[in-house]
Amino acid sequence: MSNKKNAFYAQSGGVTAVINASACGVIETARKHRDRIGKVYAGRNGIIGALREELIDTSKESKAAVHGLLTTPAGAFGSCRHKLKSLEENRAEYERLIEVFRAHNIGYFFYNGGGDSADTCLKVSQLSATMGYPLQAIHIPKTIDNDLPLTDNCPGFGSVAKYIAISTREAALDVASMCETSTKVFILEVMGRHAGWIAAAAGLAAEREGDAPHIILFPEIAFDREKFLARVQRTVKQRGYCVIVASEGTQYADGRFLAESGLKDAFGHSQLGGLAPYLAAMVKDELGYKYHWAVADYLQRSARHIASRTDVEQAYALGEAAVEFALRGDNAVMPCIVRGKGKRYSWSIGEARLENVANREKKMPRNYITRDGFGITAQALEYLSPLIGGEAYPDYRNGMPVYVRLKNTPVPKKLKKPFKIA
Amino acid sequence: MSNKKNAFYAQSGGVTAVINASACGVIETARKHRDRIGKVYAGRNGIIGALREELIDTSKESKAAVHGLLTTPAGAFGSCRHKLKSLEENRAEYERLIEVFRAHNIGYFFYNGGGDSADTCLKVSQLSATMGYPLQAIHIPKTIDNDLPLTDNCPGFGSVAKYIAISTREAALDVASMCETSTKVFILEVMGRHAGWIAAAAGLAAEREGDAPHIILFPEIAFDREKFLARVQRTVKQRGYCVIVASEGTQYADGRFLAESGLKDAFGHSQLGGLAPYLAAMVKDELGYKYHWAVADYLQRSARHIASRTDVEQAYALGEAAVEFALRGDNAVMPCIVRGKGKRYSWSIGEARLENVANREKKMPRNYITRDGFGITAQALEYLSPLIGGEAYPDYRNGMPVYVRLKNTPVPKKLKKPFKIA
Repeated sequence: MSNKKNAFYAQSGGVTAVINASACGVIETARKHRDRIGKVYAGRNGIIGALREELIDTSKESKAAVHGLLTTPAGAFGSCRHKLKSLEENRAEYERLIEVFRAHNIGYFFYNGGGDSADTCLKVSQLSATMGYPLQAIHIPKTIDNDLPLTDNCPGFGSVAKYIAISTREAALDVASMCETSTKVFILEVMGRHAGWIAAAAGLAAEREGDAPHIILFPEIAFDREKFLARVQRTVKQRGYCVIVASEGTQYADGRFLAESGLKDAFGHSQLGGLAPYLAAMVKDELGYKYHWAVADYLQRSARHIASRTDVEQAYALGEAAVEFALRGDNAVMPCIVRGKGKRYSWSIGEARLENVANREKKMPRNYITRDGFGITAQALEYLSPLIGGEAYPDYRNGMPVYVRLKNTPVPKKLKKPFKIA
Repeated sequence: MSNKKNAFYAQSGGVTAVINASACGVIETARKHRDRIGKVYAGRNGIIGALREELIDTSKESKAAVHGLLTTPAGAFGSCRHKLKSLEENRAEYERLIEVFRAHNIGYFFYNGGGDSADTCLKVSQLSATMGYPLQAIHIPKTIDNDLPLTDNCPGFGSVAKYIAISTREAALDVASMCETSTKVFILEVMGRHAGWIAAAAGLAAEREGDAPHIILFPEIAFDREKFLARVQRTVKQRGYCVIVASEGTQYADGRFLAESGLKDAFGHSQLGGLAPYLAAMVKDELGYKYHWAVADYLQRSARHIASRTDVEQAYALGEAAVEFALRGDNAVMPCIVRGKGKRYSWSIGEARLENVANREKKMPRNYITRDGFGITAQALEYLSPLIGGEAYPDYRNGMPVYVRLKNTPVPKKLKKPFKIA
């Protein structure tokens, strides 16, 4: 067996428009160092691919296919929401990982995900030491929620932010055109169950006083029905229409999500989701305005066609840096984005210790939200604006974006017994 | 008073990503013929701008601003849903129009809209003759519904089609990545109350057998709950996930829209709209699959950022042709798109008589829908594919598309008495 170790790469949690750009950074950089890194094996459907010994041999992919990952949304190897339990609760899963890694001579563990996977990555790094199996575990940040600490922002977020800001500006022009005789209130529901980063990004749509969005609803601000309705009414009277962007996590002061406020279908089944229709019905019932609503859902996080170039470049650079960190011997770290100090936006790659990343959530600062709770401040704009900078269009064929499909060739299994995931 | 007549231009009905491109074609072409056409006055908020004598003087706009209309979605002058009643029912409105046109020396009437406005345009052309006021009325087609006869397609449709096809492809990649442990069924609700053209366009997302969308629901095909659920289950078992694109106009055999099937909120108020959550609840209740759903709503028809270049070019060319038709003395006509006969898509501008356009709806041919009612045929693909051809990106500044804002300078009123719209 050669002294050269293979690498394992897995995508974790909700996918984004640019997580494959990080994969591209990892694979292309590893290929530049064939003297030190053997093959890059990807986990089929994330970490469960490692547990099941379902590995994908990325060396079977052409250079062009790997490069195509740069412009392809979602998770090319599959992702999963499986979170490894604590070592005490489920030591077997960790041992299985090491067993699979040992069988395939894997010395580098690249885990591309959010807060939960940073925690898993940290645990794996610790276990490898106690189990006497040398493994360098590097976390590559990714989450549209933008809630990881120590990095200026999280890959995936900038592209969602751009999509939501553009969609808000476009839909607002539509409503403004029609409001004299038709729709007066438009509601766009966006992702962000626990933090209002994505909703805040809608604020980038406004150029001047009075521009949409007129109301942003954040999970951080308790929803006040009377105050909300009064603001809607005032805006319609003043501007002729009102555009509302609402985070799916908008909640009452007692913590109940508005989206779970008791819609029932014809059979009496409760109807999950649907903050936007809930707010629309409230506006209609109380103010009588004609409304429309949209729920962007997965469209927002997969919209590679209008990804932020900054986001794509950062996602790639973080994948690249992860491999470079591994090559210099680092373990239990995460490459991160460091914002330059100048007035003009600049960024570089820094390094964070995973113990400082795992299980810490970056909340949106209160001073990013206006005092009335319905908008974003100049500080928020200054932070958000560069993250949507630049376009990075995919190629098109017959009017449709060309997204790569990998062969995803399985690596032959070496272990006898199958593993049952808890 | 000079012999040179002014022109009136108005946007009518639901706006699109490219209706302003037609406005651009009208104004730029009229400006090339200053010897024969005076000023182009636009109706503020469509035809009601004419009734109220609220005209916009487009001659006050810079060349750059007018050209910016080519890349700006929605209705730059405002649109409206006001439909003129029949001559018998409301002769006063027609007389008022002529009065306003006479006061402002308007000799050309350009009406940019769908089927209803084609009808209005025809009536105006007829009235001008009976009232002894010379007026050339030209209709410029526009509707995302793609239901006007005699034209190969309707400006606005191609861009919605492109947006829906791309969004379907992107969201499907997301679902495919996650389906092993998460969402199995994704539902995208699209516009099209009476015809399935937009839903059909989602079919452009598929490249190979088994690709999403796996199920398309058309208004033309009566919804069969059992058949639908069986297909969802079969698809999930076979592919691991199922992507459904559903027209908002999907209905039961008895004509009831699914979207109005009796959702009630916590207060017992019925909840309008929301076909997607209705279908999602059905899937969850009957099959138990985890689901997500999206409703694109206005996002789809305002998405200028990913407009079809073919659509933009046709919208402009139709505006241009309308002015050229007027200059050669035509009346009661509509420029239309004529598809070339060759294998490679080509198009030219033709001319249709308004009496053959008004009050005729172009339905989607039954042979565009597969026999099972859940997909589109090769004929549909052949028709639809060229309509989304090419991109026509707007300029960007600070990561956001630059959409023009007109000054919309009012023309001083000349008539004494205000007019009350019925």
